[in-house]
Parts: sequence; structure tokens; C-alpha cells
Amino acid sequence: MIKIGLCGLGTVGRSFVEHIDESYNLIKKKIGTDFEIAAIADRSIKNKKHKTGIQISEDPMSLIDIEDLDIVVELIGNVDLSYNILKQSIINKKQVITANKALIAKHGKELFELATKHNTFIGFEASVAGAIPIIQTISSSFSNEKVISIVGIINGTSNFILHKMSNSNCDLQSALKEAQKLGFAEADSSFDINGMDAAHKISILAALAFGIKPPLDQTNVEGIESITNMDISYAKELGYIIKHVGITEISDEVVHASVHPVLVSSTNIFSQVPDEMNAIIVKGERFGQTMLYGHGAGGNATASAVVSDLVSAINHINHSTSSYAQMIETVGQKSYKIESLDNTNSQYYLRISADDVPGVMAEITNKLAEKKISIEAVTQHEPTDANSPIPIVIITNNVKDLLMQDVIKNIEKMKNTKDKVYAIRILSSDG
Amino acid sequence: MIKIGLCGLGTVGRSFVEHIDESYNLIKKKIGTDFEIAAIADRSIKNKKHKTGIQISEDPMSLIDIEDLDIVVELIGNVDLSYNILKQSIINKKQVITANKALIAKHGKELFELATKHNTFIGFEASVAGAIPIIQTISSSFSNEKVISIVGIINGTSNFILHKMSNSNCDLQSALKEAQKLGFAEADSSFDINGMDAAHKISILAALAFGIKPPLDQTNVEGIESITNMDISYAKELGYIIKHVGITEISDEVVHASVHPVLVSSTNIFSQVPDEMNAIIVKGERFGQTMLYGHGAGGNATASAVVSDLVSAINHINHSTSSYAQMIETVGQKSYKIESLDNTNSQYYLRISADDVPGVMAEITNKLAEKKISIEAVTQHEPTDANSPIPIVIITNNVKDLLMQDVIKNIEKMKNTKDKVYAIRILSSDG
Repeated sequence: MIKIGLCGLGTVGRSFVEHIDESYNLIKKKIGTDFEIAAIADRSIKNKKHKTGIQISEDPMSLIDIEDLDIVVELIGNVDLSYNILKQSIINKKQVITANKALIAKHGKELFELATKHNTFIGFEASVAGAIPIIQTISSSFSNEKVISIVGIINGTSNFILHKMSNSNCDLQSALKEAQKLGFAEADSSFDINGMDAAHKISILAALAFGIKPPLDQTNVEGIESITNMDISYAKELGYIIKHVGITEISDEVVHASVHPVLVSSTNIFSQVPDEMNAIIVKGERFGQTMLYGHGAGGNATASAVVSDLVSAINHINHSTSSYAQMIETVGQKSYKIESLDNTNSQYYLRISADDVPGVMAEITNKLAEKKISIEAVTQHEPTDANSPIPIVIITNNVKDLLMQDVIKNIEKMKNTKDKVYAIRILSSDG
Repeated sequence: MIKIGLCGLGTVGRSFVEHIDESYNLIKKKIGTDFEIAAIADRSIKNKKHKTGIQISEDPMSLIDIEDLDIVVELIGNVDLSYNILKQSIINKKQVITANKALIAKHGKELFELATKHNTFIGFEASVAGAIPIIQTISSSFSNEKVISIVGIINGTSNFILHKMSNSNCDLQSALKEAQKLGFAEADSSFDINGMDAAHKISILAALAFGIKPPLDQTNVEGIESITNMDISYAKELGYIIKHVGITEISDEVVHASVHPVLVSSTNIFSQVPDEMNAIIVKGERFGQTMLYGHGAGGNATASAVVSDLVSAINHINHSTSSYAQMIETVGQKSYKIESLDNTNSQYYLRISADDVPGVMAEITNKLAEKKISIEAVTQHEPTDANSPIPIVIITNNVKDLLMQDVIKNIEKMKNTKDKVYAIRILSSDG
């Protein structure tokens, strides 16, 4: 039984507990070991809901001395306190996990050396870009060749603010207030706005990609505080979107690290990173540009990165390389029913060729109305020449596949329609 | 010394050899073991350049019996031959790596069971989405909770064709010819066009995400052959881009798998996946939507995935969990010079506030011209009210940071300019 101690029962801490409850069987099977949260320390634990039958304490430092704890998960935020918890836990041979980017940017080198010396695992996936597995990917797939540069939208709050300013023309202050209301900007959001949060993160990425001490003190830091709605609209007129990024690159053994606003061409994939989403492009000498994109803020996203570290920590304890082997073992173990798309729903694009005669549009739309399919948009186009049929394009609302096929057949049977109806599904915005 | 046998010295095979040559020291340090390509089999090896001092053969099956080969890398393509090579190699206790998606989609379950039985590693990262580490990520970070769906642009050739048809209005056949000329569409590209290639890939992803046998026979397969320029332009008028995707999802223990064209809203990040790039969105119950994006075709991209498998295979032989531990060990080992941005180049967006008097624009542009900075675009805007200064926006060409700061100071010193000049760097399209 692996025993876990959790420091900090805030948003991420609670989500971590929930995630483990929900996915307990899945994770237990994956790691081949039983595990449990055996202790929680939080300054106001008395006022918080928690499981019974575990050790609780108001003093986070108390966990480091509990002998049978194997792993300490630190989700507090305060740099000095976190530093002491991690340091003492490592010395006491516990595996440690943190989400604290300021801590790793400032004391990463020392803590990594200590962890290496004591052969303990130190996990910090949650410190950069929430649910995006950037640390894991840099350590595995991206480390077989020279990494040239990393560019990332790595502060969810400032991306949310810029996206909001751009799309609804509100000013920075009211966009910030909305971010705080939605819960992903801190009450003290100065580090989001002035770039320090992104600077912590790009320092960590630079350290891992280039094997240097996190270059926090040498990072050029500029925030979003000077960006006005004017800039956003002028940039738009010129085909650009304003984003805030962290950039680090190496050339001729010289490293640059900086965070600052940039204009991004509206055809660049970065221009489509909305809301509080994060995206990181890593450029390798041979693999080219690879981007990871996902939720960079929020309790669930951050907690899922902590869980990922938890699994790595347990694998470290078990000395196993099991995740890959276990994945291929699962193939064929399930025998879910695999269905055709007949009963699934989607919006449809329909292209219909029809004679240019009165009533043809009415007849087509009636065929849809008969089956209670609503139309979101319809356009009738000019024929390519006087004698050819006219193309009619319809965007439907959500409709069951089988029903759509049925209606298409009815439309194709009409006297005044020609050729096959060409139908394409519309990808819903939630994938 | 780990000995590698390579079957197939085509585009990917040659790129694999080059990658290993180039990154030999990096990889050797990472895995802590020496390794070499000890044998190559290729039908026309006699006409191809290759290293001397290694075993060569025209018969791919010959590698399976070479006793001191630890790893067999199969890059041939033919399903039946590849199947026999992998099967016999696994039985002979060799680690195996393949890039063959049709093979894994058809025989994956059997080969995985065989590999599990013989405790050998079977790598197939290169079979789906080239350089994108999707297999690795599904096996590690994405496997700690329930995966709900996977949607991907996973056929580079058809994405290239659709992007080309959309942006230069050429037809499908001529776009296909260009893809073939550029080298990422096969001479026989029927599987790219009719969707079978994407079907192989989505079957593999469904198998890994849901623990089922690859559902190739139950996958709904539709290609891009019916898409016309008309569809692309009608879709565009309505705010959509046409893409070809593979989709698999699970709900209530029922799985769907399909590949077909879809309309994607032009504000959806998928709409910005250009050329032969691939992108895959994995949706988890707790981590939300996470996307991996990168080069899905081409020798270097595919070979980098093969190298990633090679490292996993060697780690499997060494029973080590080293990639993560080794990454953190590297932090601080390098002491590269870390420079400010002074000597770096970028395009700039400048917002200048100036009095609305004759000659002010000429004076500003002269300040730029003096330092040989060219202007890509300039716009002068209306003042917000009659008495306020007018905003002038300039996009410069590439300019050295220090020089830009210098010119900005000169502009700020002008009698007719007000406030600070606000400068933002423009992100270059290559990151």
C-alpha cells in the first residue's frame, strides 16, 4: 500500500482528491499497486470537508515526519514553505510532487540535485501549462534530438483577457474581473498581468530543454499591462491577433528567454488559442514543430497533471517501466459494442443540385421539415452556366445520421433534383 | 552494446540512420548504453549507399535469425511480410519497432499478446501521426482517467490537398500531384484519398484508448474523393473550412469509429492545421480537451518517432525508468551564455501618438529610414476626439532589438509625438 500525504486542500487539492476517488480502479490497475491518501495538512482543515479515518493536521510541515508516508504532494503555493516541505521530504526519502512554478524556477536546480542524490522522484508536471503533458513529453519523446526553441502561450489568465478584449471589446480591467469571477485568475493577479507567472514557466522549460539552471533572473519580462483595445483593433485590421507568449531558444550555445506580447498572424495556429487555453510549440532539429494544446488553468486540469506525476512517482517506487507495456496489454481486453454512426447526431452541410424552377427550394425544405430537421443556413448559388443545375447549400441543425440519410434519399428522388446529394458532417466545437 | 537490425532503407529508413548518426551522443547519454545499427536488409541494398562494416542482406526475413541482434526495426510497408518479420522476431525474443499502420490495425491485438507473452517491447509510435508523440502520451499522461473521445486530422496528404484546394483554388487531382512531387503522398495514394489510411490510424487509437481490438472492420470509412472546389467555397462563405478527420468515441460502453470529411468552424483550432500537418484532440473526463499537433508525414518526422521507440526499446532491455530521472539530472549541467534580446531580430508593431500636423508622418518614417528599417505597413487612424493626438501604427520588417529601441527613443524625442511608443514583437510563422 502506497501512502500519500497531501499539503493544501484548496481548489487543486480538492480536485486531486476527487480525481483519485473517481479513477481509483483505473490507476490501481495501471500501476499494479494499491494506494491511498493517508494524511492531509491544511491551515483551515477544520472548516473543510475531508475523508474520515486519515491523519489530519493544520501544519503542512507535519507531513515530512510521518514515517510511513511514501509520497508528499505539495499544493500550497507559498515558495518558502513549499521549499522547506520538499527539501525535508526528499531528505526523508519521500517522493515529492509540486505544482509550484515559482518554487521550481527559483530552487529547481538545488531540489533536482537533492532528489537525484537521494534517488527520489520529484514531479512538477502541474507547474507548467496545467493538463498539457509538456514536462513528460520533453523528458521522453522530445529528448532524442536537439531542441531549438520553445514558444508558448503559458499564462491562461492573460490569454483569457486578450481573447476577451479582442472578441467583446471590453477593457483589460473588466476582462480581468471576469477571469477572477470564473476562478482561474488569482485574487492577486499581478503575476499574471506583469508576466512573472509566464517567466517562471518559461524558465522551467528552458532548464529542461537546454540543461541549464532555470534562467529566471536573465529572463526579459514584459506583461500585458500596456495593451489597449486600440492595439487589438489596429492589429486585427492588419491581419494579426495579440497574444502573450514565453519564448526560449538556443543558437550557437547562446540561450534567450523572454516573455512579452507578440502579434501573431491570423493564419498562425496560435491565433486560434482561445480563452484560458495554453499552447506550447517545441521545435526540434528533426521532428520540426510540434505543438501541445490544452487547459492550462483550473482545478481539474492542474490536478490531472498532479495525478500523472503521482503515477510516475509510484512507478519510480516500484522500479517499473510499466505504462507502455500495460497499455498494449489492455488491447482487446474490452469487448465494447462498436456501432455504426446510424444513431449518432451531428449538424450537416448538404449540397444539392436542382433545376432552376419555381418551388424547388420549397420542396426541398419541406422534405427536411417533414422529418423535423431545422435549417440553420441556406444559400442558393448561381449555376455555372445557363443550362446546368443550380447548387443549393443547406446547413442543418443537429440530426440523427440515419434520419439524415433517409431525407437525403427523399431529396434525391425528387423530379427537379440532379445527381447525388453531397453531405458532410459539421464538427462540433467540443470535438 | 545494443545491436539494431533495420529492414527497409527507403525514405524513413535513411532518415532513421541519419538521425541516429546525428544524435548518437545525446541518445547514448540518455539511455546509458552504447548501441549501433549492426545489420540492414533491403531488396535493393546493392544500389544504395550504406555504412561499411555491417551485415547487409537483400532478404528482410534474414534479420530474424541473426542471434546477436537485440532490436529489429521494420520500415518496409508490406503487411504480410512485416507481419512475419515482427512475429518471428518477437518469438526470437527481439524487441521490435514498426511504422506500419495497416499491420497494427489488422494484427495489432495478436502481436501485442505475443509481445506481452515474450516480454518484448513492440513500438509503433511512427504508425500514427509521424512526429506527434500520440502513442506515448496515450500510454502515460492520458491513461489516468477515462478518455471520452479522439478526433484527429491524421492523413497528411488529404489535409494538404484540402488546404491547397481551399487556398489556391486548384482541383483535387492537381493538388494530389503536388503532394506526390513534394514526396509525402505515395505513388499509389488511393489509401490517402479514400480514407483507408486514416481508418488504420483511428483504429489503432481506438484500441489503445478504449482497450478494444482495433475496430478496423467496424469503422465507417469515407474519403475526400467527392469534395469539390464548390463545396470548399460554399463552406467558406458560411464560415467553415472542410477537413478530413478520424473520430472515435465511447459512451455508455458503445464505441464509434469513423473517418470522413467534416466542416470545421473557422474559429475552431482545427481550421488552422495547414498543409500536411496533423493534429489530434484527445478529450478526457477531467483533463478536458488536449491537442497534439505536428508533422504527420515526411521521412524526418516519421523517423524521429522510430527513434523515440528505439529509446523505449533500449530502456525496456535495461529495465530502467530513466528518461524522467535523467532529464532532471541534466538541469544545470550546461552553462550556456544567456543573452538579453538586444541582438535578436524581429518584426515590430509600433503604436505612436502624434499631433495631427503636416510632416509628422514623414518625420517618423525618416527616423526609421535613417537606420535602414523598412516599413511593411503603416496606418494612420482618426483621433478619438478632435483635441487628442492621432494614433499611427507601423509594422516594420525584421530589425535588431537594440536598434529598434534606439529608434523608438528618437521618435519619442520628437516635438510632435506624445506619450511612449508602444512596441510589440511579431511572432514569425516558424515560431
